[in-house]
Amino acid sequence: MTEAIDLLIHARWTVPVEPAGTVLDNHSIAVRDGRIVATLPRSEALTRFRATRQVELAEHVLIPGLVNLHTHAAMSLMRGLADDLPLMRWLQDAIWPAEGRHVSPAFVRDGTLLAAAEMLRGGITTCSDMYFYPESAAAAFAEAGMRAVLGLVMLEFPTSYASDADDCLRKGLAARERWLGHPLISFSIAPHAPYTVSDTSFIRARALADELRLPLHVHIHETADEIHNALATDGQRPLARLARLGLLGENFIGVHAVQMDESDIELLSRYNCSIAHCPTSNMKLASGIAPVPRLLDAGLRVGLGTDGAASNNRLDLFQEMRHAALLAKVGTLDATAVPAHTALRMATLAGAQALGLDASIGSITPGKQADLCAIRLGDLESRPCFDPVSHLVYVAGREHVTHVWVNGESRVDKGVPLLHINDSELLRAVSVWQTKIVN
Amino acid sequence: MTEAIDLLIHARWTVPVEPAGTVLDNHSIAVRDGRIVATLPRSEALTRFRATRQVELAEHVLIPGLVNLHTHAAMSLMRGLADDLPLMRWLQDAIWPAEGRHVSPAFVRDGTLLAAAEMLRGGITTCSDMYFYPESAAAAFAEAGMRAVLGLVMLEFPTSYASDADDCLRKGLAARERWLGHPLISFSIAPHAPYTVSDTSFIRARALADELRLPLHVHIHETADEIHNALATDGQRPLARLARLGLLGENFIGVHAVQMDESDIELLSRYNCSIAHCPTSNMKLASGIAPVPRLLDAGLRVGLGTDGAASNNRLDLFQEMRHAALLAKVGTLDATAVPAHTALRMATLAGAQALGLDASIGSITPGKQADLCAIRLGDLESRPCFDPVSHLVYVAGREHVTHVWVNGESRVDKGVPLLHINDSELLRAVSVWQTKIVN
Repeated sequence: MTEAIDLLIHARWTVPVEPAGTVLDNHSIAVRDGRIVATLPRSEALTRFRATRQVELAEHVLIPGLVNLHTHAAMSLMRGLADDLPLMRWLQDAIWPAEGRHVSPAFVRDGTLLAAAEMLRGGITTCSDMYFYPESAAAAFAEAGMRAVLGLVMLEFPTSYASDADDCLRKGLAARERWLGHPLISFSIAPHAPYTVSDTSFIRARALADELRLPLHVHIHETADEIHNALATDGQRPLARLARLGLLGENFIGVHAVQMDESDIELLSRYNCSIAHCPTSNMKLASGIAPVPRLLDAGLRVGLGTDGAASNNRLDLFQEMRHAALLAKVGTLDATAVPAHTALRMATLAGAQALGLDASIGSITPGKQADLCAIRLGDLESRPCFDPVSHLVYVAGREHVTHVWVNGESRVDKGVPLLHINDSELLRAVSVWQTKIVN
Repeated sequence: MTEAIDLLIHARWTVPVEPAGTVLDNHSIAVRDGRIVATLPRSEALTRFRATRQVELAEHVLIPGLVNLHTHAAMSLMRGLADDLPLMRWLQDAIWPAEGRHVSPAFVRDGTLLAAAEMLRGGITTCSDMYFYPESAAAAFAEAGMRAVLGLVMLEFPTSYASDADDCLRKGLAARERWLGHPLISFSIAPHAPYTVSDTSFIRARALADELRLPLHVHIHETADEIHNALATDGQRPLARLARLGLLGENFIGVHAVQMDESDIELLSRYNCSIAHCPTSNMKLASGIAPVPRLLDAGLRVGLGTDGAASNNRLDLFQEMRHAALLAKVGTLDATAVPAHTALRMATLAGAQALGLDASIGSITPGKQADLCAIRLGDLESRPCFDPVSHLVYVAGREHVTHVWVNGESRVDKGVPLLHINDSELLRAVSVWQTKIVN
């Protein structure tokens, strides 16, 4: 007697991420009602299940959908607007003025849709976003069919979005109210950074995060200047200040964590915090090399983020996996640092854990949602293949992603994104924004 | 009266690399007898020329074919065989034993063909190779229609190829004799490294390079251990030893140049040497960060190399351009280091200059050979586009390469490689090698 299911995926290799280090040969993944029902050898799957749809992935590796732990999705409309500049000049001379002139609900909607299309096509099924007008971003992610945790950004200074941090929160919480219960959309509280948020606002953010059981999503210790300025104005390092304010805790996601001393790592470890490591952005803005092997040794959950497309300039977690591995090696002069399996875990399960979503995503585990990504390793640039996980990190690119599912629903099929709006409509909208931004 | 030519390419953007910093809008490139005849505005081109073939590249940027200044092409058959290991363990425990068992003329032919197909498809039209059996490699590059400078490798210890450095040279020179005059194939003298080649052999290499007017292609100062060991055995740093032996000069290409002090840079600068910078390999093997901005400031020609696919694991100069820019920034904590135009120049003209080929390749300049590469920036992940050169380095990947010409002959057309042998035949051969290598 066979069991009826919706989808049966047969893959040459499956890397479930959990248990760690596992590579399954010729296994099948059974999906029903958006969830993974079983992972089992192909021959057993064919006996046990009767599927509405079967997908043969004869040269592919199947992995959990990638989790982008830090991005500013709508900034894709400013991709490559300004390069080869340090963080503060890049922000003050290029990004903030452009944002002041252009950011609006329509900008966020179109930019987020562009980012979601790019991310889904590259195997990213979940992202942790931080930007203005989270309601517009939520609408775009829902339209694209992508899972997103929208950071309700808080900044003290006035922007086109809000007059101050309180106004940010008021608007953000209203957006959250309207999206409560959506299967793909959730929220975090996102005080921008220690240098843009006051003590009072941080305390309010912590209280809200506790009350609503939301993650806290904060840029921390990105540049040496940030540390120097904080020491000059507050007399303490930013993480020490956040600890004093009660910000740190299991739901705290610190983004960047580049400029870290032993006391910083001890604090993050004591409070069981998570880190969003953004290696490409840290290199491009010359911020420095985050001490990822030490963070991992301290038991922290370290996920990967692309940061925004304006400072990367790709929303590509294959690139971030490769850069996490390569930068850790050259940063420690230890070629064994962040091996391939570790990089893949960072890009999937660790990100899900940081977001508190690991009960439902982050690994190919029966009972979890079917957020999946298939990568074809059949082309000549992927041959030979001695180890598919090595190839995922050191050889493959997002261009090899062929299939993506979110909640068991197909989002990319044979490399083609299945978006509700078509490419050309989106590209026309992007073109209009480009013209506005340069004029 | 119009002028008859073979090929007229109309591109949205053309980046000729020379003059530096130039981006031409809606220009056309005229090609006759394999050479560039003119670069001129599209409207003028249509009046002046009558072309056998015209190619419209409405969303593309046209650049000179990329020059891979350092690779071990045939090692593509060992792609990903061993990862996450430091250089000497990687060589001694994994690579050298595999080479001892398998390297043969057939291995080199098949591996080089795989590498040539990968490189051409990724816009690389010229490479500087260093491996065993250069005659087999020459045959493969000629078959693929790719320009190659084959390093006649020299090693003191016995290999499956030769009994010692003299035997290496004897065989290499015989190979050179048989390929003299081929339009795509030339040679260099390639003493492997200071730690594998004796004084006598280095002196012989210099004499031959002078006599035959060939480049010298040598790994130098890759790891800290190399320097420590040289100081212990020779009482001087490897580059000082090479200077003493008369090795340094305008035709000297030092590969890696990671572990450099002021005296090293002064030596390379005094002798007007060139450097092959291999950022991905240096990161992956945890060798360190080459001081590229200082090398450039010292007036050295710094080209880019992929190294072999066994330590990278991609033969992808788009990746190397991106990594050269990113690694220089994070290595110096200066976000303005190696901007996009500089990275592109390194991947094209600087490599051609290092090889002594800049009279014929390396820029889109009338009179040079038509080695060209077109990259499409039309997909959503390349939108918007404020600056095509920024996108080449920070956004695009080799997957966006649509057209490649070598000597004006089409090698890749709309993304499809036009190889004499078909993919499936090559992939079957690779598959056989994979089985042999793991057994």
